[in-house]
Amino acid sequence: MHQLTVFLERPLTRNIIMGIIIFNAILLGMETSNGLMQNYGTLITTLDSACLAVFVIELLAKLVAYRGRFFRSGWNWFDFIIVSISLVPAAQGLSVLRAMRILRVLRVITVAPSLRRVVEGFVNALPGMGSVFLLMALIFYISAVMATKLFASAFPEWFGSLWLSLYSLFQIMTLESWSMGIVRPVMEVYPYAWLFFVPFIMVTTFAVVNLIVGLVVNSMQEAHAEETNAVTDAYRDEVLERLKSIEEQLSKR
Amino acid sequence: MHQLTVFLERPLTRNIIMGIIIFNAILLGMETSNGLMQNYGTLITTLDSACLAVFVIELLAKLVAYRGRFFRSGWNWFDFIIVSISLVPAAQGLSVLRAMRILRVLRVITVAPSLRRVVEGFVNALPGMGSVFLLMALIFYISAVMATKLFASAFPEWFGSLWLSLYSLFQIMTLESWSMGIVRPVMEVYPYAWLFFVPFIMVTTFAVVNLIVGLVVNSMQEAHAEETNAVTDAYRDEVLERLKSIEEQLSKR
Amino acid sequence: MHQLTVFLERPLTRNIIMGIIIFNAILLGMETSNGLMQNYGTLITTLDSACLAVFVIELLAKLVAYRGRFFRSGWNWFDFIIVSISLVPAAQGLSVLRAMRILRVLRVITVAPSLRRVVEGFVNALPGMGSVFLLMALIFYISAVMATKLFASAFPEWFGSLWLSLYSLFQIMTLESWSMGIVRPVMEVYPYAWLFFVPFIMVTTFAVVNLIVGLVVNSMQEAHAEETNAVTDAYRDEVLERLKSIEEQLSKR
Amino acid sequence: MHQLTVFLERPLTRNIIMGIIIFNAILLGMETSNGLMQNYGTLITTLDSACLAVFVIELLAKLVAYRGRFFRSGWNWFDFIIVSISLVPAAQGLSVLRAMRILRVLRVITVAPSLRRVVEGFVNALPGMGSVFLLMALIFYISAVMATKLFASAFPEWFGSLWLSLYSLFQIMTLESWSMGIVRPVMEVYPYAWLFFVPFIMVTTFAVVNLIVGLVVNSMQEAHAEETNAVTDAYRDEVLERLKSIEEQLSKR
Repeated sequence: MHQLTVFLERPLTRNIIMGIIIFNAILLGMETSNGLMQNYGTLITTLDSACLAVFVIELLAKLVAYRGRFFRSGWNWFDFIIVSISLVPAAQGLSVLRAMRILRVLRVITVAPSLRRVVEGFVNALPGMGSVFLLMALIFYISAVMATKLFASAFPEWFGSLWLSLYSLFQIMTLESWSMGIVRPVMEVYPYAWLFFVPFIMVTTFAVVNLIVGLVVNSMQEAHAEETNAVTDAYRDEVLERLKSIEEQLSKR
Repeated sequence: MHQLTVFLERPLTRNIIMGIIIFNAILLGMETSNGLMQNYGTLITTLDSACLAVFVIELLAKLVAYRGRFFRSGWNWFDFIIVSISLVPAAQGLSVLRAMRILRVLRVITVAPSLRRVVEGFVNALPGMGSVFLLMALIFYISAVMATKLFASAFPEWFGSLWLSLYSLFQIMTLESWSMGIVRPVMEVYPYAWLFFVPFIMVTTFAVVNLIVGLVVNSMQEAHAEETNAVTDAYRDEVLERLKSIEEQLSKR
Repeated sequence: MHQLTVFLERPLTRNIIMGIIIFNAILLGMETSNGLMQNYGTLITTLDSACLAVFVIELLAKLVAYRGRFFRSGWNWFDFIIVSISLVPAAQGLSVLRAMRILRVLRVITVAPSLRRVVEGFVNALPGMGSVFLLMALIFYISAVMATKLFASAFPEWFGSLWLSLYSLFQIMTLESWSMGIVRPVMEVYPYAWLFFVPFIMVTTFAVVNLIVGLVVNSMQEAHAEETNAVTDAYRDEVLERLKSIEEQLSKR
Repeated sequence: MHQLTVFLERPLTRNIIMGIIIFNAILLGMETSNGLMQNYGTLITTLDSACLAVFVIELLAKLVAYRGRFFRSGWNWFDFIIVSISLVPAAQGLSVLRAMRILRVLRVITVAPSLRRVVEGFVNALPGMGSVFLLMALIFYISAVMATKLFASAFPEWFGSLWLSLYSLFQIMTLESWSMGIVRPVMEVYPYAWLFFVPFIMVTTFAVVNLIVGLVVNSMQEAHAEETNAVTDAYRDEVLERLKSIEEQLSKR
């Protein structure tokens, strides 16, 4: 067991796995080309299966080596799910599952520490934005219900159901064709529709700006704390220590 | 009276109210579905009325418990207005009022302290941006008057009145279809129209960027002040105190 | 002369001028309404002329009171130019000049100190961004020459001349309809056009982001310097002074 | 040799070269005008060739003066490549090469130190964003493979090949016509397409926001480090030195 762990964590093993992932990524990219698939189709799919086999073996080896500890790491879960998706036998109809096999390439993140750190940074930033996200979800839900009730009859294509309204409001929040595409036509039927949409744009944009501001402030504080505090703390401790020793020396006499 | 206050501020009461609000939100969401309304219409509207009744009773209880103090809190005003809107009997024609009943769900913010803090943060950020908002309002008003005078005759749909111009300029500020949709057609009639629109875009975009920059700087300063000052101040006080005591000890002798 | 200066700088005079500017703004807004102009046209234009007369008299009074010093302030230049524009007799054809009379309302900025500070902040931020602006002007000029040479023959409407190319590139930089509206049609004739446009978007967007980043950093530093330094400097001076006095006391003995 | 170096680095030489570059920029701009080319075509092209000759001579002089050291500076490489492009004899068909001669104007950056610093700032900011760029490249590659597999058959114009998908996804990331132009039509065939596109927009937008946040934090730290540390360090050193001397004086006795 122990030997297996050592083998799996060796840099060489990591690099080989990395190489196979990249090779697999290229293979899966080639699969999108009809020309290549007609000429080398069998070769490409065979090599792809071989890559998948390596990933399955690696995952099983990890499961054997780490056992219970395996599922304590979020990244192992990530690998496990991604490889599992690839193993699901894709029925003819479910081309979505076949397309999702490319997600395997995301394993590069697990293997490359620098990418891993970036993704961990992203994920760690999320909880701090939880309340703002909740608030935006609330605004979206309320706005979608209102939009559906107000505009469903006249514009079923955009606001016909709660889901259609949510999608249209997301589009409006990204400012894509919000006026020429949606609000101006709506205003031809309901002239006061801007009273709903303009505040919606302002509020959601303001919330998004606040999300970004929050992100900036958080990252800044972390960077600030990391860099300066080590030096500052050492300096402060020395000053206080020296002051104490001076006081002691003075009071001794 | 006192007992009522205690009852209203109990965590359990809060949680029950929160549950009712969320349940009501789901009910109001269901109302947008024609299928559900045909089959369970009476049930849904009855339950909705029951939720509203709870809110009215809660509000009356609060009014009785806090009396004059009730209207000192902005959040109570917020609840009061939202519930009042729901109580207005919606005439057949005024479907807007019926649609606005979903605003009731905004009461979640009043009840959940974390959301309350986010909204308070948003609202507190506004006064600091007051001057920039005033300036933008000025730019919008002046630009709208100019646009109306210049382009009203040729493009009544976009710049026919002050209000239409204001709306079109808001759309242009969000950069939505500003060129292909509006300025290029205008330039076909008035070839120098870009002399109006391009500076308008630059100035308003610059003002918006300054708004965001101001927000970032403010949040940063607040965060900075909160975190470091407590530690720094304690350290500084200690250093000064020790220095003073050393001086005193020296001068005594 | 001195009395006139005192009169002009009295708060009451300022407030009256401010009131007249706002009243004039409303009048000029009313001029955009055909209905109002048909019924009260002569009244509105008479009152407007009266407002203008007040501004001219105020400006002349300032010129008399401050003489040479008048043109040392940028804000006086600003007022002078704005009022002059309004005085140019608008020929029938030059409706642009008539429309520019609304610029008079910008005098609110000169009179209101808070707005003045915001605008001064904007203007002061510009020189720090000078190099980036110059660089962007360079990129725009080079890209416009390239675009004209490459695409003028096939797309005269968008890239027919240097000016048309500059306008189209500005539109592309704002990301408005850049792909569906311009680049996709261009790619149908020149399939490799994306090699020109995608890097252009990336470079200009990156430059704009750097402009904003520079603004944030500058504002932050200013805010930081203003707030903390006064306290910190006082503290540092005290610490050093006390340390020096301790040393002196020790060396005296 | 030495004399040549001195001559090349003289401010006057620099300014003359700068003047020629700007003159050349104007000439190349004039070349885009058909009217000017018909009347002064030979003059413009002759002057343009003269400018190019100056640049070639300057470059050769630099090569002679600095020899091996010439290629140690990235900016010299930059000049070398730009001038080389202009020298390639443009065949009739390769109008692209003729259009690229305007790139010569980029030499302004090499000559003007302030622009050089801005570009160096841009380039220095890139490595810090390397991991995020790699991650975005990964997301784009995976999404493009998926989009091609899923939508190629129904929308060959947008997702027909890996390259078309990459281009379309870039357009979607910039939010240009993403919904009205692409996703809504796609959803008419594949109603669940939003499950692919909406998360794609969210992830890439979030990554871009993180890039900008990283840029802000980096610039801020650099600015912070530059300004305050010199003063702070001097102060700290002095405090520690004085404390040490006090201790020594006390222990001596």
